[in-house]
Amino acid sequence: MTLTEQLRTILPAEVVSDDTAVLAAHAGDKWFAAQSPAVVVQAESTAHVAATLRFAHEHGIPVTPRGAGYGYVGGVVPARGGIALSVARMRTIREIHPQDFVAVVEPGVITGELQAAARALGLFYPPDPASLKNCSLGGNIATNAGGPRCLKYGVTRNYVLGLEVVLMDGTVVRTGGRTHKNKTGFDLTGLFVGSEGMLGVVTEATLKLLPHPPARAALAAAFVDVRAAALGVEAIFAGGHLPAALEIADAFTLRAARAHLGAGRLPAGDAHILLELDGQPAAIQHELEALAELLRGRGAQHVRTAFGDAEVEELWALRRAFSESLKASGLTKLNEDVTVPRGRVVDLMEFAAELERRHGHAVASFGHAGDGNIHVNIMAANYQDPVVHAQVEAGLDDLFRQVIAWGGAITGEHGIGLAKKRWWRQAVSPENHALHLAVKQALDPKGLLNPGKFLDP
Amino acid sequence: MTLTEQLRTILPAEVVSDDTAVLAAHAGDKWFAAQSPAVVVQAESTAHVAATLRFAHEHGIPVTPRGAGYGYVGGVVPARGGIALSVARMRTIREIHPQDFVAVVEPGVITGELQAAARALGLFYPPDPASLKNCSLGGNIATNAGGPRCLKYGVTRNYVLGLEVVLMDGTVVRTGGRTHKNKTGFDLTGLFVGSEGMLGVVTEATLKLLPHPPARAALAAAFVDVRAAALGVEAIFAGGHLPAALEIADAFTLRAARAHLGAGRLPAGDAHILLELDGQPAAIQHELEALAELLRGRGAQHVRTAFGDAEVEELWALRRAFSESLKASGLTKLNEDVTVPRGRVVDLMEFAAELERRHGHAVASFGHAGDGNIHVNIMAANYQDPVVHAQVEAGLDDLFRQVIAWGGAITGEHGIGLAKKRWWRQAVSPENHALHLAVKQALDPKGLLNPGKFLDP
Repeated sequence: MTLTEQLRTILPAEVVSDDTAVLAAHAGDKWFAAQSPAVVVQAESTAHVAATLRFAHEHGIPVTPRGAGYGYVGGVVPARGGIALSVARMRTIREIHPQDFVAVVEPGVITGELQAAARALGLFYPPDPASLKNCSLGGNIATNAGGPRCLKYGVTRNYVLGLEVVLMDGTVVRTGGRTHKNKTGFDLTGLFVGSEGMLGVVTEATLKLLPHPPARAALAAAFVDVRAAALGVEAIFAGGHLPAALEIADAFTLRAARAHLGAGRLPAGDAHILLELDGQPAAIQHELEALAELLRGRGAQHVRTAFGDAEVEELWALRRAFSESLKASGLTKLNEDVTVPRGRVVDLMEFAAELERRHGHAVASFGHAGDGNIHVNIMAANYQDPVVHAQVEAGLDDLFRQVIAWGGAITGEHGIGLAKKRWWRQAVSPENHALHLAVKQALDPKGLLNPGKFLDP
Repeated sequence: MTLTEQLRTILPAEVVSDDTAVLAAHAGDKWFAAQSPAVVVQAESTAHVAATLRFAHEHGIPVTPRGAGYGYVGGVVPARGGIALSVARMRTIREIHPQDFVAVVEPGVITGELQAAARALGLFYPPDPASLKNCSLGGNIATNAGGPRCLKYGVTRNYVLGLEVVLMDGTVVRTGGRTHKNKTGFDLTGLFVGSEGMLGVVTEATLKLLPHPPARAALAAAFVDVRAAALGVEAIFAGGHLPAALEIADAFTLRAARAHLGAGRLPAGDAHILLELDGQPAAIQHELEALAELLRGRGAQHVRTAFGDAEVEELWALRRAFSESLKASGLTKLNEDVTVPRGRVVDLMEFAAELERRHGHAVASFGHAGDGNIHVNIMAANYQDPVVHAQVEAGLDDLFRQVIAWGGAITGEHGIGLAKKRWWRQAVSPENHALHLAVKQALDPKGLLNPGKFLDP
């Protein structure tokens, strides 16, 4: 019997496929690498996931779990073949409870859909990865996804109260619960969040919701360069402000945006910041005015404020167009979500510009200034050319070496996956790597769950 | 050679003691149980901790780590004797970095001291356990401590960016780092936070700081009963408000406070709520007035507002006196920090009152209404009497059974320790317990680190 036939003895035929198009659709994510699995299981229930894992565990078959497939690091590439186990069909929001302030979701639910459903009940699910219209909560949990609003609200981890997880041997475990505080035992919930599908497969999540802030405001300010913009950011924090989001963009990014959107859409200045406030209407109106005044006093050349959803979204639409504008440049965009200690943001952006001079490829930097999480995009012409490829890799070596030397992290929100596997051992000590292996061994002794990633040679 | 003599061959003599008074001072915490260790090591450095653990690991000697000893669940009782390993002498704040917004501390630093030092630089460390003047950050990390401000700011876990941890075999591991976002590998930092000294000994922590909010305000409101007060709480959330803290107190607590402090200090009403706001002065002034109006419209009989540190602290001083007032009643106060889904707060407080009728001991409930984390205090006369003791235990059985049935947690912020060990297996599934054992086995295969607690028979 083929693997497909074997799986069809324990699962409904319609959830098991080795159709060429289905295999191709489950070979990778938004990163470059792709590798076909032998078979795809499109699970529709916890029972399907458990049966698949139990079978694979018994027979020593690799399993690569995946959500919506919108990751940026090749984390769902079936690097050792075997079974691609998708939970994308598990898309039910099981419950949104307005008094308990929790949502119970299946892992395939799209992040933006949960946000909309919560919003309709006056509730708020803060994590806002850029791909929120396409990415799934299961994927967000696997990568501990962030987004602009993390500055005030924290990352996905802060909103996961409880999980149902299937371990590699098919055991179904529930961790945490539906209370907003819980100190019952070790933080097993947190162990699975961000584990990139290497410790278990999440089949249900109980998420914390907040009251929806009744109003939003935003402010965009243009500065002469990133150093001036960073001084503006420092002044914001020094004033005791903690915006919901605080973004920065560099000259290359702004040039690309002007070329793509029309010069008139963005004011002059080689560095822009964008911040968002949320809360009670009168309160944020006051704070917005105070911030505008503060930034004007710190050299902002152009300050634009926005109040209410429509105006705020207009400013964000410009920010969201940055990625698209860079792609429209015709160059290949290699997005590295490095994170530095907050005081190093200017150093990082200046170092990124230096990389451009050193390796000959343009570099566009923009991202979450408040978190120190800057997306450094190496913009390569003819990336398929092996010479160019080698130049880019050398540039990335320089980038990651410097980020690590500053006490930074090689990934702030995308994960290691395959894309950053090469720098994993530089990023952690031998003792830390060994501890990862000990935990992995405890939960997946045969090393079958998402193999070929950062813990494997 | 005695154990003391052996330890003195690898450690400075002055950090090893089996003096009777020293042993007695390291036999327990603020809970009832006590058990003398054979010897106390008062480590002054990571090297002392590593040498102690390596030695104990080789010789099969139990080690019970401890911070300031202000826990409420007997988590630091050396239940199997052996070595009590204190980090209380490691009290250096190594760094507070105003641009990176991080603090680097040794584990014996007192929570309130870090808060004051950060405050002096315009920075804010939010977690605020009630014992913050006495408890240590190492203990806060071991128990993932909470406090009133968790409602807006989250628990200790949300502020731990990186750790230096010594494993049972003496290996020193660094996890995380000093960036506000980090997705490098599994969340090993989170695995140690809340692990109650059973997976490793924290010797350094890098903590996240926020800009200090420039202003604080508070509001106290009296209601006719807890159901009316809970409707007030619901209205606050429905209005999109997320106060920094939102506390509730029941009739018994208020009666004890009036008896202890003088009736004039607290207005009438059988349930009080207290909330705090922080942020920009004009913003919170607006929100404070809106909340006062909202609560008056929801049946608040008496509303008192406070603005600025001095006035706000006066209101908190009353809240903090509740515990003391209950102790002054002459009864033994058994504080259980149960947590229920937020919508169950009234049910819990009414159930607690019912416990009083059923078991004959008064019950005082107060705590963090916004989190669903209510401290249910069984107030026992003659607790040493075995009959009373059995009655109280029966009451606790009823309490925990009901909390678990509601999907609640038997501990929200104190931990399991010895105090709640009896209910651990009811609180988690067999699969969850087994997963705890697998993780424990991976990090401490000989079971020597803080033995006799919730994972041991």
